Amino acid sequence: MPKIGIGIIGVGRIGKLHAEKMLHNSKVQLLGISDVFMNEELVEWSKPFNLSIMTNSYLELIQDPRIEAIFICSPTNTHIEIIKAAVARGKHIFCEKPISFNYQETKEIMELVEQAGVVFQVGFNRRFDHNFQKVRELMNSETIGQPHLIKITSRDPQPPPASYILASGGLFMDMSIHDFDMARYITGSEVETVYAEGAVLVDPEIGELGDIDTAIITLRFANGALGVIDNSRKAVYGYDQRVEIFGEKGNISVENDVPTTVKVSTEEAITTDHPKYFFLDRYIESYKTEVNYFVESILGGLPPLVSAYDGYQAERIAFAAKQSLLQGRLVRLEEIQ
Amino acid sequence: MPKIGIGIIGVGRIGKLHAEKMLHNSKVQLLGISDVFMNEELVEWSKPFNLSIMTNSYLELIQDPRIEAIFICSPTNTHIEIIKAAVARGKHIFCEKPISFNYQETKEIMELVEQAGVVFQVGFNRRFDHNFQKVRELMNSETIGQPHLIKITSRDPQPPPASYILASGGLFMDMSIHDFDMARYITGSEVETVYAEGAVLVDPEIGELGDIDTAIITLRFANGALGVIDNSRKAVYGYDQRVEIFGEKGNISVENDVPTTVKVSTEEAITTDHPKYFFLDRYIESYKTEVNYFVESILGGLPPLVSAYDGYQAERIAFAAKQSLLQGRLVRLEEIQ
Amino acid sequence: MPKIGIGIIGVGRIGKLHAEKMLHNSKVQLLGISDVFMNEELVEWSKPFNLSIMTNSYLELIQDPRIEAIFICSPTNTHIEIIKAAVARGKHIFCEKPISFNYQETKEIMELVEQAGVVFQVGFNRRFDHNFQKVRELMNSETIGQPHLIKITSRDPQPPPASYILASGGLFMDMSIHDFDMARYITGSEVETVYAEGAVLVDPEIGELGDIDTAIITLRFANGALGVIDNSRKAVYGYDQRVEIFGEKGNISVENDVPTTVKVSTEEAITTDHPKYFFLDRYIESYKTEVNYFVESILGGLPPLVSAYDGYQAERIAFAAKQSLLQGRLVRLEEIQ
Amino acid sequence: MPKIGIGIIGVGRIGKLHAEKMLHNSKVQLLGISDVFMNEELVEWSKPFNLSIMTNSYLELIQDPRIEAIFICSPTNTHIEIIKAAVARGKHIFCEKPISFNYQETKEIMELVEQAGVVFQVGFNRRFDHNFQKVRELMNSETIGQPHLIKITSRDPQPPPASYILASGGLFMDMSIHDFDMARYITGSEVETVYAEGAVLVDPEIGELGDIDTAIITLRFANGALGVIDNSRKAVYGYDQRVEIFGEKGNISVENDVPTTVKVSTEEAITTDHPKYFFLDRYIESYKTEVNYFVESILGGLPPLVSAYDGYQAERIAFAAKQSLLQGRLVRLEEIQ
Repeated sequence: MPKIGIGIIGVGRIGKLHAEKMLHNSKVQLLGISDVFMNEELVEWSKPFNLSIMTNSYLELIQDPRIEAIFICSPTNTHIEIIKAAVARGKHIFCEKPISFNYQETKEIMELVEQAGVVFQVGFNRRFDHNFQKVRELMNSETIGQPHLIKITSRDPQPPPASYILASGGLFMDMSIHDFDMARYITGSEVETVYAEGAVLVDPEIGELGDIDTAIITLRFANGALGVIDNSRKAVYGYDQRVEIFGEKGNISVENDVPTTVKVSTEEAITTDHPKYFFLDRYIESYKTEVNYFVESILGGLPPLVSAYDGYQAERIAFAAKQSLLQGRLVRLEEIQ
Repeated sequence: MPKIGIGIIGVGRIGKLHAEKMLHNSKVQLLGISDVFMNEELVEWSKPFNLSIMTNSYLELIQDPRIEAIFICSPTNTHIEIIKAAVARGKHIFCEKPISFNYQETKEIMELVEQAGVVFQVGFNRRFDHNFQKVRELMNSETIGQPHLIKITSRDPQPPPASYILASGGLFMDMSIHDFDMARYITGSEVETVYAEGAVLVDPEIGELGDIDTAIITLRFANGALGVIDNSRKAVYGYDQRVEIFGEKGNISVENDVPTTVKVSTEEAITTDHPKYFFLDRYIESYKTEVNYFVESILGGLPPLVSAYDGYQAERIAFAAKQSLLQGRLVRLEEIQ
Repeated sequence: MPKIGIGIIGVGRIGKLHAEKMLHNSKVQLLGISDVFMNEELVEWSKPFNLSIMTNSYLELIQDPRIEAIFICSPTNTHIEIIKAAVARGKHIFCEKPISFNYQETKEIMELVEQAGVVFQVGFNRRFDHNFQKVRELMNSETIGQPHLIKITSRDPQPPPASYILASGGLFMDMSIHDFDMARYITGSEVETVYAEGAVLVDPEIGELGDIDTAIITLRFANGALGVIDNSRKAVYGYDQRVEIFGEKGNISVENDVPTTVKVSTEEAITTDHPKYFFLDRYIESYKTEVNYFVESILGGLPPLVSAYDGYQAERIAFAAKQSLLQGRLVRLEEIQ
Repeated sequence: MPKIGIGIIGVGRIGKLHAEKMLHNSKVQLLGISDVFMNEELVEWSKPFNLSIMTNSYLELIQDPRIEAIFICSPTNTHIEIIKAAVARGKHIFCEKPISFNYQETKEIMELVEQAGVVFQVGFNRRFDHNFQKVRELMNSETIGQPHLIKITSRDPQPPPASYILASGGLFMDMSIHDFDMARYITGSEVETVYAEGAVLVDPEIGELGDIDTAIITLRFANGALGVIDNSRKAVYGYDQRVEIFGEKGNISVENDVPTTVKVSTEEAITTDHPKYFFLDRYIESYKTEVNYFVESILGGLPPLVSAYDGYQAERIAFAAKQSLLQGRLVRLEEIQ
């Protein structure tokens, strides 16, 4: 069976991660990369891949007929243009989150993709995490019946640099967006209302940049359930990623993954391991699994799991949260059209 | 040293509990009880106490000069009248929560008590729980520095009967009020704003009675911290009582207490014990400790820990939560005067 | 119903503990105590009990007709004489472990007690611990079927003083004896062979006194199961009391009890509470429960649970372990007659 | 840098595992395999490797000058012959455990390998497990000071078929041998005495084959520490792999790894995940790490970690355990020369 030819656009941390995982996926062949900074370091890094195309123009990549699918890992503000170009040439698309900072543009993309019939997957990798997939399965099997409450804790170990914050679209669009998607995934229901509280407690500079670093967001779902997400940019003990869903017949919770199960008991303290430090440790397997899933979708074996619609919905919720924070009021998702 | 003479007004479940604990407290002597239903069952129950006074009139109890302190365990709507009568006679007062359903009346009581100089303690027993006291100590010792987020989970194992719901003052005043007090106790800060979401997911009858059975309440504190409380009237796996506080230098969490540490591993499942079933199991020690504390306060050894002001503040927050739910908006505590 | 009149012989730490628990047991009345050191401190301590008899002669206590049952809490080498005197007068007996240092004398006592028909209970309080009782129940309900392996960890937080070591009968008779009884209790089977390894690793002085401070003891049971006990006189992190039983259909394990469920996560460490510090913390409830059980046995409501035979068997195993250690060989229990 | 040419002898479950891991190791190139059953299934499986040599004669593989290192994954009774042939040709050797069923032959091999100066690593993969490596690090950093007790639980989820049992060398040589090596690795000390108890409790057929399925083995170490290993061929709840080491300054324990951290609370039970099912799940990473280590040893970057001497010592202990079981007595390791 011929391998699916892949091109990666934007070869930063995530782009490289995808490339390296592809080395071990026998169904794909990474053929080319594009990056506006096609520097020596990148050339050196690319050697083991024996690439046919290395360019600073994403168009060149997209136009190559050998490329059947592209991974968009460039900055968010470039996504729309790239997707349009790729769809026009019938390429399948894996796009990092968020699709755009503008949910209306994302809606347009969603419709475009649907008409074109290409496979489109958003990089909500956490849906593929071993823990959360188990939760989803348990929900499907009605283990706890109808959901009443969903609680998501999502805290980074340290804030990103100012440059990142500025280009991030803000905490809700950059960080909470994963949690918005998780909330929809786990409950299997759509968000109807959003109320957000935010604060600058970690670093005043983040506030000066117009963003917040701490938040509590309350959600109400179409199926009647209530939800709450808490976020912080700085959990000094490591990446804190927990989910809990409570329903009529019980509760399901996910604790943090740990590097080892070692427990040390001394006169001073009883200690266990810190959570895995950050997303590249905690979610490393999910990055592999999401790409496998994308590949199987192209091959026709699996229905799309994280569609453009999922990207669109998460963006709408992020936008609603921002509105709620700015206006100090409950925002209905239907306001966000 | 002569023992402190005690009278209990209202001898239901909690009144009896206090009475039984007093048998083992060498500093107090239960001298009398009053209850509007002074029936045979109560007479039988009281025998081991060798009481001097058994009456259906609380006034008779209060007027007895041997009674130095009273425990008010009667329905909430009788508290104000009883407190006024007791204060007028210089009695020390232990009053079950809430002091009243009307925070303005409670404020009046608060001032009255202050002027009279009697010891007054509200029955927020959870402040005396071994777990939460440890959290308070850790906060005092700056283990995690400034608090950023506080999260309280408080779920009952089963809803009370309709008759109880009707007289309860509603979920916020009856159940969440403990959590409002806990939030103030743990953060050491006052609540400034309240946003509440509620739903009827457990039992439609609760909705027909005008109450809710599921809630998520977001708080903002004077020190900048954010907080969230989630409540349910029905956690089928037992009483779920957890607290978590996250700050600049870390996180402190309290898991449920369990009856045993037994873990069973079979082919079917790996299981551990359910949480202690309800408040009389989980908080039984705290009921003893709070009474000890009250007694020491009377004896002059300890400053009041749960004052009328604490009762007043919790009621204001409960009222604000109700307003928020009814009006679908953020409520500032300063609105509630 | 008249209360059962109780006398306590030997009022050290354990004797006092039993006395204090009796204050809260409505079915018994502590009438007298005897102690060879009937000093001022003891007189002071006894005041709240309003005792009728305070003597330095245990015989005086036993001879009093109001005393129906005695608690023997004096040093082990006095037990035999006291038991004989008490049985002769038809008293019910609660005897701290071990009954004697000489299993042959214990056997004699066992027969004496049986003939006399008095209630006799040995102070193996751990059988009444909430965790271990649950394990016993699970074994009874065949949760894990036939037992294959039992593992007991029993480590003290700190070694006793030299004076205690000298009078203790050695590690096996003093400390492991609880574990020998637990092994029989949990497996519901008799020990057939014993192999013991011991070492002096904690404190050379213990070796100089002719004792060991660290041990691993392997047992083989009549039902085919194997067992292992590990002991240490010094676990710096606190009293370590765990049991695990593995069988054809699974495994049951008991973790240490902790004072609180608080978990602290900081940059330095993730910590939880130390185990309860020592037996008075960990087993405090079991001391109350065992006395309740003894009382119910006297009242006829319950069959004896920890009989003289149980004391005898545990002593035989302890003796066998000592033999095994001294001779470096497997010892069959049938050798110990 | 040219890749190290590798040949694998014996391509069963473990041989295949090693081959597949090598696909992702850029420093090695699998050039050939040999297996006495070079059937179609194997040919099919080998396709992605583009092998230069596929033979049913291990000699052909060893004689090829492109092969620098061999992996011996054939049955234990073929190891000695293969190692001798490989050493004679200066090949580096990775040999699955045990090296042989005869510790005297293994000793000979050990000397041969030493003289030849080739790199030799035994397949005690558990030394490379994330949990146990952490324990080893903590021991090196004196976290708990001098070790007093080591406890290893090692239970398989289900017994192997009779054919495997017959060729396995028995429980001690096949299964406990990993634990003997772990005991030496963790304590950093040599075993001096062995006492073993064994039983047939899982399946009478295992007894009929002359083996046992359940064991408790007590060890005494040169540094004075005591140790105990418990083994079972059938833990119905999954692969049970725990280690605990107790010392003068504390205790270190390793719990089982679990597939997910999901906890489900219902009215019926509070459940968490089963342990990872068997060694290919639990130790999968360690198989990769041990091969990396072997490769680095060949490249000169790392000293050998699991030497022929380690294989030899573990076999001696296994032999001593067998002697102890058969003779019902303590066996000193110095007897086993």
